[in-house]
Amino acid sequence: MISLRIVFHILGWVIAWVGVMMFVPIAADMHHLDWEIFGRGSAITAFVGISMILTTRQSGTPKLNYQQAYLVVVLGWILVALFGAIPFLEMGISFSDSVFETMSGITTTGSTVLTGLDQMPPNILLWRAILQWIGGIGIIAIAVLILPFLRVGGMQLFKIESSGSPEDKAASVMKTLFLLGAAYIGLTATCALLFDLFGMSAFDAITHAMTTLSTGGYSSYDASFGHFKDLRLHWIAILFMILAAVPFFLYVRMFLGDRRALFRDAQVRGFVGFLVVASLGMTYWLMTQRDVELFRALTLTAFNITSVVTTTGFVSDDYTAWGPGAVGMFLVLSFIGGCSGSTSGAIKIYRFQILFIFVRSHIKRLFSPNRVLPLKYNGRLLPNDVPLSVLAFLVVFVATIALFTVVLTLLGLDLVTAYSASVTAITNVGPGLGTIVGPAGNFQVLPDAAKWALIFAMLAGRLEVLVLLVALEPDFWRA
Amino acid sequence: MISLRIVFHILGWVIAWVGVMMFVPIAADMHHLDWEIFGRGSAITAFVGISMILTTRQSGTPKLNYQQAYLVVVLGWILVALFGAIPFLEMGISFSDSVFETMSGITTTGSTVLTGLDQMPPNILLWRAILQWIGGIGIIAIAVLILPFLRVGGMQLFKIESSGSPEDKAASVMKTLFLLGAAYIGLTATCALLFDLFGMSAFDAITHAMTTLSTGGYSSYDASFGHFKDLRLHWIAILFMILAAVPFFLYVRMFLGDRRALFRDAQVRGFVGFLVVASLGMTYWLMTQRDVELFRALTLTAFNITSVVTTTGFVSDDYTAWGPGAVGMFLVLSFIGGCSGSTSGAIKIYRFQILFIFVRSHIKRLFSPNRVLPLKYNGRLLPNDVPLSVLAFLVVFVATIALFTVVLTLLGLDLVTAYSASVTAITNVGPGLGTIVGPAGNFQVLPDAAKWALIFAMLAGRLEVLVLLVALEPDFWRA
Repeated sequence: MISLRIVFHILGWVIAWVGVMMFVPIAADMHHLDWEIFGRGSAITAFVGISMILTTRQSGTPKLNYQQAYLVVVLGWILVALFGAIPFLEMGISFSDSVFETMSGITTTGSTVLTGLDQMPPNILLWRAILQWIGGIGIIAIAVLILPFLRVGGMQLFKIESSGSPEDKAASVMKTLFLLGAAYIGLTATCALLFDLFGMSAFDAITHAMTTLSTGGYSSYDASFGHFKDLRLHWIAILFMILAAVPFFLYVRMFLGDRRALFRDAQVRGFVGFLVVASLGMTYWLMTQRDVELFRALTLTAFNITSVVTTTGFVSDDYTAWGPGAVGMFLVLSFIGGCSGSTSGAIKIYRFQILFIFVRSHIKRLFSPNRVLPLKYNGRLLPNDVPLSVLAFLVVFVATIALFTVVLTLLGLDLVTAYSASVTAITNVGPGLGTIVGPAGNFQVLPDAAKWALIFAMLAGRLEVLVLLVALEPDFWRA
Repeated sequence: MISLRIVFHILGWVIAWVGVMMFVPIAADMHHLDWEIFGRGSAITAFVGISMILTTRQSGTPKLNYQQAYLVVVLGWILVALFGAIPFLEMGISFSDSVFETMSGITTTGSTVLTGLDQMPPNILLWRAILQWIGGIGIIAIAVLILPFLRVGGMQLFKIESSGSPEDKAASVMKTLFLLGAAYIGLTATCALLFDLFGMSAFDAITHAMTTLSTGGYSSYDASFGHFKDLRLHWIAILFMILAAVPFFLYVRMFLGDRRALFRDAQVRGFVGFLVVASLGMTYWLMTQRDVELFRALTLTAFNITSVVTTTGFVSDDYTAWGPGAVGMFLVLSFIGGCSGSTSGAIKIYRFQILFIFVRSHIKRLFSPNRVLPLKYNGRLLPNDVPLSVLAFLVVFVATIALFTVVLTLLGLDLVTAYSASVTAITNVGPGLGTIVGPAGNFQVLPDAAKWALIFAMLAGRLEVLVLLVALEPDFWRA
């Protein structure tokens, strides 16, 4: 039997922090009338969190085993989605919609069921940004602390190496976490400052910086980032979406003295190279097919491609209106994702690189079976189990999308809506395709059952799909 | 440098045989006026084939190396598609359409660009059936003789074991090929007899038996199998589509004394079990959602599910009109495929079984990395390289579909048409989704460039995708 005491203790801290964060919209918006919306939510959440902390205290250093770490992650995400939904509920939004909006926030997906954002009270808009921002730092922490040890989808590549006594290791982990947090906060502040400098209101600058750095994509406007007409703001967003989608531990390494860590990394190079090639290709296509002039075409493609590939999900234009070629391209781009250890979701660049290396060596071995080809990635030998993990991830990823597509069509959605909603939820991108869930649409009109399916899909996608499968394996609970 | 003499010699025999087969429609339809259509084609084809045979003769036993075997397979399929198209060209059909129809035939896909089949001269209908029937036996031969040695997508599991001297081995291979051919011809004849017995004309019985056993799905009617109103004919077709989609070497093994080979095989069991469960599930759905009575619902679902899963592509009803749930289900079913070593395409049952075994053991190992779990399939230990081969196959398969989807959308097709056409071509099923390529539509109206993309996609799918990638690997040509 797994001891749940430590699990609930950590979850208590998480919930208490959500309660504290819920206080921020009140403080930021004292003069606004409906502060009770957050007051009551903040009080309830903090109370539950603190009660859990106090009733589960124990002496000694807390140490988690696999099952406990697993439960903290999964239950943590579910509980934050439920408590975080309280302000929406208090506004009179239905339970399904409230949980959808919150889950979409903390998984940094960015699909929304709210319309009329432009007239929404600012504290609700701020809360949506905070949810994504919390979700962003949450996934970075998990990607560094937990996923490498669960060996999920090749993440074991990104284990932090530390040596020395357990106390040294713990100190090194705490230091890493602190520096990761500092990088996240520092980048968010810089982004907000630049947004403000180039013409956004302070409120817009802060909320959009939070949803940029978390690659979440919630905007305070129905027109999303298209609301801002100054194209310089679009280029700032492009830059910070990219900075949010690179491995955050590289910032730590740069801080610790390895100044070129970011530029030497094979994954970062592949990622940026891909963005450049895809943007230039689509710019050419847009200029020749749609007669858009160069700078505007480049800004449009670079912004929307970066937004989809980093799984942010801001839109600056309804790209599905660019023609069927754009629809096909953006659907495929949804699958790509940024780098590991960042806030972005989907398949991620390193998996494509490992797949390429693996498939190439596999083809070579088709006709000379006895050749031994050591695989190298990022300047190091690739452990044997990594390609297997990546491949297993991919199979489960594709199967999960197929499963949710069938479920959504059975609930009455047309194929394009069902498929693209399933893809965009599992990849945590945000917008799908078609009139309902597309960049110009809204998830509001979906039936409640479909919203719950997507809530589950967003969670599954955020936790790298395999994590949820682990729970179905009885051996896990006995191990 | 690879010697091409032996390659062209074998190709000469293949082309000569196509010329001989082209004579069959003339013999079968002497009284019809336009026999020149086939007369000229048959003469040209036979002449080219025989010239190639005579100019490349050499003494000694011919022995193929990897590269030569590879070239025979790929060039063979392309040349048959070109020569086989002559009768269509002579009818005044455009070059693109003629090659599309022929490639769709010999890859046993069954997508058609012809309309007004009901009024078509019988010799052309017979030629379409013959193309699929040739394609069917071709792929069985390749699946036994060549793919296991190229180790494509886990096919190395199905290597025929033979021992003794090279002469013994060659004799055993010839015997196996002979028995495979006998099984194919015997099943076709039995199917035709039963079709005839239950009310089809002799002509319809023979052509439909040929396109059933090849899991091709060409019909002599625009309404496809829906033309036949007697539901007993549908059940005969269901039975023979299943018999065409099981591993043909199991028939050989049964003939050689292992009477229960077919019923003991894990792949066959999984395949039939899946069909039963899927058909019953969808029957229940159709009865409750659409108010169809039991026997009719069961016949409709069993027929169309078996047709799509075996990649035959007959339709007895426009299932896309059953509702969005059916659309989603049939799209997913397109990917499944029958068993290895049969005439069916797509992913195939054994790959799903190996994936399941592999992913399950992978999940177990997520949390106990040091455990060694020997994998078993079909009562035997699974070689280590098989799951890897299967996974590599899957990755390339999915990527190829994505690639063709993007290409087709760039050519102006809408997403559902582009995606489902890409899927149905690569899986060799036949019908796609939507008004153009759906079960009630026709590939005729697609732009020529899209047809050529699909011609290439059908070939790639038929040769298990990886086979074409091999050619892109420079090492292959040096090995």
